[in-house]
Amino acid sequence: MLRAARHASSAAASASPCSTAALLDLESIVGAGGLSVNESVIENHGSLERGYVGWSRPQAVVFASSTPEVAEIVKACAAHRVPIVPYGAGTSVEGHIDCPAAGTVMLDLSRMDSVLAVHEEDFDARVQAGVTREALNEHLRATGLTFTVDPGANATLGGMVATNASGTTTLRYGAMKENVASLQVVMADGSIVEAGGRARKSSAGYDLTRLLIGSEGTLGVVTEVGVRLHPQPEATAAAVCHFETLEGAVGACVGATYTGAMPARMELLDAVTMAALDGYQGQSFASKPTVFWEFHGSAASVEEQAATVGELAAAHGGGGFEFATATEDRARLWKARHDAFWAVKARYPGLDVLATDVAVPISRLPGVVEATHADVARLGITAAPLFGHVGDGNFHLLVIFDAADGADVARVRELEGALVARAIAAGGTCTGEHGVGTAKLQYLDAEFGAPAVDVMGAIKRALDPLDILNPGKAVPRNRH
Amino acid sequence: MLRAARHASSAAASASPCSTAALLDLESIVGAGGLSVNESVIENHGSLERGYVGWSRPQAVVFASSTPEVAEIVKACAAHRVPIVPYGAGTSVEGHIDCPAAGTVMLDLSRMDSVLAVHEEDFDARVQAGVTREALNEHLRATGLTFTVDPGANATLGGMVATNASGTTTLRYGAMKENVASLQVVMADGSIVEAGGRARKSSAGYDLTRLLIGSEGTLGVVTEVGVRLHPQPEATAAAVCHFETLEGAVGACVGATYTGAMPARMELLDAVTMAALDGYQGQSFASKPTVFWEFHGSAASVEEQAATVGELAAAHGGGGFEFATATEDRARLWKARHDAFWAVKARYPGLDVLATDVAVPISRLPGVVEATHADVARLGITAAPLFGHVGDGNFHLLVIFDAADGADVARVRELEGALVARAIAAGGTCTGEHGVGTAKLQYLDAEFGAPAVDVMGAIKRALDPLDILNPGKAVPRNRH
Repeated sequence: MLRAARHASSAAASASPCSTAALLDLESIVGAGGLSVNESVIENHGSLERGYVGWSRPQAVVFASSTPEVAEIVKACAAHRVPIVPYGAGTSVEGHIDCPAAGTVMLDLSRMDSVLAVHEEDFDARVQAGVTREALNEHLRATGLTFTVDPGANATLGGMVATNASGTTTLRYGAMKENVASLQVVMADGSIVEAGGRARKSSAGYDLTRLLIGSEGTLGVVTEVGVRLHPQPEATAAAVCHFETLEGAVGACVGATYTGAMPARMELLDAVTMAALDGYQGQSFASKPTVFWEFHGSAASVEEQAATVGELAAAHGGGGFEFATATEDRARLWKARHDAFWAVKARYPGLDVLATDVAVPISRLPGVVEATHADVARLGITAAPLFGHVGDGNFHLLVIFDAADGADVARVRELEGALVARAIAAGGTCTGEHGVGTAKLQYLDAEFGAPAVDVMGAIKRALDPLDILNPGKAVPRNRH
Repeated sequence: MLRAARHASSAAASASPCSTAALLDLESIVGAGGLSVNESVIENHGSLERGYVGWSRPQAVVFASSTPEVAEIVKACAAHRVPIVPYGAGTSVEGHIDCPAAGTVMLDLSRMDSVLAVHEEDFDARVQAGVTREALNEHLRATGLTFTVDPGANATLGGMVATNASGTTTLRYGAMKENVASLQVVMADGSIVEAGGRARKSSAGYDLTRLLIGSEGTLGVVTEVGVRLHPQPEATAAAVCHFETLEGAVGACVGATYTGAMPARMELLDAVTMAALDGYQGQSFASKPTVFWEFHGSAASVEEQAATVGELAAAHGGGGFEFATATEDRARLWKARHDAFWAVKARYPGLDVLATDVAVPISRLPGVVEATHADVARLGITAAPLFGHVGDGNFHLLVIFDAADGADVARVRELEGALVARAIAAGGTCTGEHGVGTAKLQYLDAEFGAPAVDVMGAIKRALDPLDILNPGKAVPRNRH
């Protein structure tokens, strides 16, 4: 009863518009230039990919320029019971930056964009949360070091922490959890917490860093990120190969994980995706399932790895094996992979796109991919290009649909539900790298069981008792 | 005041001997063979390395044989307010299995020693918490896969989860946090939580797996562990090299982290350690700072790495470079490294040994090691062999002392305090892999700042409100 009462009161608070007093308090912290209720500013903070998740507007956007400002903003919002949705670059896809409660304030961290320190000798750096991954790598260009996590979009580091982002290079270099060593976070009471440190490993205390990574702004607002860097490899080679069947392509990828080769990237694109890429921005590809590889290491090691994988591809019916070591040739190949999302968008103008992802144990990948293709056909979905980081057992499904057509939306929901159920039944997860947001909340009990979700709720309740930090994301509200 | 009151009441509860009713309840769960108050059984559950941490006895030892039994035991202990100290193999060194509160029950999980599943095709396995790492690797022998985390001692997987164990191979394969994908844990209320899953990565919900790893049994009792496995390398080579100076040895190790070589192990042993090893079990070594390396990969890659590191060692004054690829030769070399602790013990019979560890950013390692040696000389410590996993910036200090000599104990405390303060000042951690236990509680505020420790306390309070799970470890009691 207490829990229900708390929610009722919290929901009541957040169902009212943000008071003038609250807005004045916020303005006194950030100045007139730091607070906006302008419609176009607000609209610019909309989600890139709304799918059927939708996006409700905040009442105001507050731009923070320092950690102490973030702390003051959080304290003021707590005092006025104003919900806060942290915002980086707006590239999340599962409803993370939706503002369903009336009176929500969006806390934009993009002005906190300083690289604070680079320790070349220790392969680490410290940045403010609003630094984007591309800006960080541009900053690092002269050092010979790179920040390897690459989710495709030019997200901010704070946003990437929020969703435990990963991407094409995670196969070799890990996701955010393996590449973030420390965080500075403003908690719901305005206290500033330093989590983690600069040592390569530690067994000191509870791992707040990893608890906060993937918590989607529901436990604290990330203000600084300590990242691990990797030396640029001595040699790099890319390879592309197309297959007659999807099974052949998946089989080659699964097989490659069992060899001594350690591809830095291994990306699968199905025939639908390749058809969208063919002709996009002057590119030319066969509309066949295709795998993109990249190998890092010494010159000799790269050659050895490519040879191993080349033989494996051939054994799975791979053809048109193209090998590239020159920087511009590699860039051309990878541009195609990175264009996949936009090429699909361009191919289906006027239609909506739902971007979803799951991950499964690698041995279960062929079966899950095959069954998903069968579902798409059975449901009469317009198109559902499938591609992704199959070395991690992780793939994306873009579902093309018309959000105004109720029957189409129902088909999409059914497809996503079947996809997730199958991934979970295979021992996998409802989301490999996109996060829960609002869209995947419904699947957490199936994936972990109720006791685990209750523990997540207990942590949320302990650290954000007023439920003001990104309410209704990551963990269902009725569980805390 | 509420917090103080809670602690007073909790301390009062745990200051009384465990009631007969509680013992009868426990016996009804595990049967007569599962509960012991026998003095020699209790003494056998003492800590291996007590240093000045000491070890207080539990009132009884309960042997669990299944997860439902663990859940019933925890519920019974909660009902009677009986503190529980989980026990695996007793190899922790920082007071983790100390039972200072009267009436404590030790929960021995060593009978839960089944390997539940091995998924060769997905490189993972599921084991009960009482399986030891050596038993697991013996079980895996025919598969070509190994569980790589090697803390030296033959710890149980549950215990290794508790401390986020790591070791010689962590440089390449990671610590427990990188090698544990899922857990089954009995929480303080007896609920059974499944955390994580079998996919290589996930962004679903809060990362309970990583929160629980390193939580030292204070948030839940680990009953099952899902581990990641690695294929045995195609080729392996070991190398040993001694140096005229400690600075040369450390310099070679730091330098190696900047090359393309990826040693699987890189272990430094100082002259004091090598002197203890010389003559131990018929081994012969120069009493000089020495580095042990191991390289994994294809035959060509191993050769390339060894050549790179060999040149680097020579440039730092390394001599007597010995290279071994045959299994028995490698085993002989590594036996020496693994004997270090016991060789030191044998060298100083009748004296006590404190085993402590810190980790720092790699560039700070030479300075910290040098200053530590100076401290040992300044304080007139009997001996303090220094060795460890320097590629991670992590090293151990064994301090030889007489626990009955107050002045000696004071010197040891001062040395440890100086060591930790210096590691923290360098951006490092008070413990790289041993954990906090009771011995390092005092350093958490200095390492993380008070707000972070308060967040840890809030999590402990939320998940174990009665403070019955390994009370007084990992997080200071007055912070929750």
